[in-house]
Amino acid sequence: MGFWIVVFKFFDIYLTKGYNRNIIWQEALNVEEKEISQAVIGRLPRYLRYLGELKDEGVERISSQELSRIMNVTASQIRQDFNHFGGFGQQGYGYNVEYLYTEIGKILGIDQTHKLIIVGVGHLGQALANYMNFERRGFLVRGLFDQNPELTGTLVRGIPVRPMEELESFIGENDIDIGVLTIPKEGAVPVSKRLVDCGIKAIWNFAHVDLEVPDGVQVENVHLSDSLMKLSYNITRFEKEQG
Amino acid sequence: MGFWIVVFKFFDIYLTKGYNRNIIWQEALNVEEKEISQAVIGRLPRYLRYLGELKDEGVERISSQELSRIMNVTASQIRQDFNHFGGFGQQGYGYNVEYLYTEIGKILGIDQTHKLIIVGVGHLGQALANYMNFERRGFLVRGLFDQNPELTGTLVRGIPVRPMEELESFIGENDIDIGVLTIPKEGAVPVSKRLVDCGIKAIWNFAHVDLEVPDGVQVENVHLSDSLMKLSYNITRFEKEQG
Repeated sequence: MGFWIVVFKFFDIYLTKGYNRNIIWQEALNVEEKEISQAVIGRLPRYLRYLGELKDEGVERISSQELSRIMNVTASQIRQDFNHFGGFGQQGYGYNVEYLYTEIGKILGIDQTHKLIIVGVGHLGQALANYMNFERRGFLVRGLFDQNPELTGTLVRGIPVRPMEELESFIGENDIDIGVLTIPKEGAVPVSKRLVDCGIKAIWNFAHVDLEVPDGVQVENVHLSDSLMKLSYNITRFEKEQG
Repeated sequence: MGFWIVVFKFFDIYLTKGYNRNIIWQEALNVEEKEISQAVIGRLPRYLRYLGELKDEGVERISSQELSRIMNVTASQIRQDFNHFGGFGQQGYGYNVEYLYTEIGKILGIDQTHKLIIVGVGHLGQALANYMNFERRGFLVRGLFDQNPELTGTLVRGIPVRPMEELESFIGENDIDIGVLTIPKEGAVPVSKRLVDCGIKAIWNFAHVDLEVPDGVQVENVHLSDSLMKLSYNITRFEKEQG
């Protein structure tokens, strides 16, 4: 499918513009690259997790069939997903685990560090601040903010909680990329606006509300209630099926 | 699309089995019902959230166009999603908000109560135990478990933490539907096996590992690291696009 999009795009550009073929292929491939769906992206962290485990076990090469078996997805799905990124090496030989792990890590941008602040230091905010695995992936928690004056100055994993008034200056001075919102939905919209105005690159939103942000600001929502309701649906559905 | 699947299925069954037409339609429609994808299901909680807000604002009827505008999805997507469940009323008049809210709630199974236990009373477990919105949706936290003996007997929102040894007896005596796993990945697989052996209906898994459970046990994963990596991918991608 992806292949035919590129080929179609090639002829589309060739016929309408008629210029240098190399440049056209480039353009066609770029278009193709942009077509990578969020569904494919959403699967990459899972590949990374399994490859990390294989790497830790000392496995050097793995075939798509073998990877398919342990990950419980089809080998064709794996090849399709990897083809979005150039395929990662010869199929006959299997994939080089270390290389594949590194490349997928690069695609996910975890070869770079990201600086985070957490807004809302309730239980969830504290859970995230304490979660060391994020740091290992290059997500560094640099600041904590809460509107409750009683929390100001208290430490979570050695990081002091700051008042909301310091939000803008702290982001500016500390080159913060990502704002994590672990506050109730009422506060989330105005705080997200303040983050956007400071030039934040991304918001990881746990508040139960959809945020409107300009293009170029990335938002990833974790709506826990929605996930729980999906579970509830599947229970109900299964019970109905069983009569 | 869905319509043609039903029609095709009808003739498929009619030609191969040749029995009573009413039964066949039933069978064909059942097949269609099963085709509802997890993607559609995943969108229902968001509909419910917006409809709940409209209901609170006193809005009685809403057209798919208007709902489309406030939810930022196409009206055709909304109609398609709702058609999976019979369409929920006349399009010309718009939808009755209260009715639609109730019906989607029923589909999601939140007209019934579900009893939960939380295994792992760290920050995340405590965050979930304290989150009152779940109770409002009918998800009742009935028990807390942790392997750390120092936590035994301590209270979270009035609920005592129990030792892991009491897991099986507590589930049996309290008619627990859902086990929430907020423990590190090492413990998650053995604990999930114990939950399955007790006849638990569903597992809400926050551990960073995929669980293998028998058919009929529902699993919904919340892999927070995966979500954060998706965000990181989108930041990197946007920066590349901007050159």
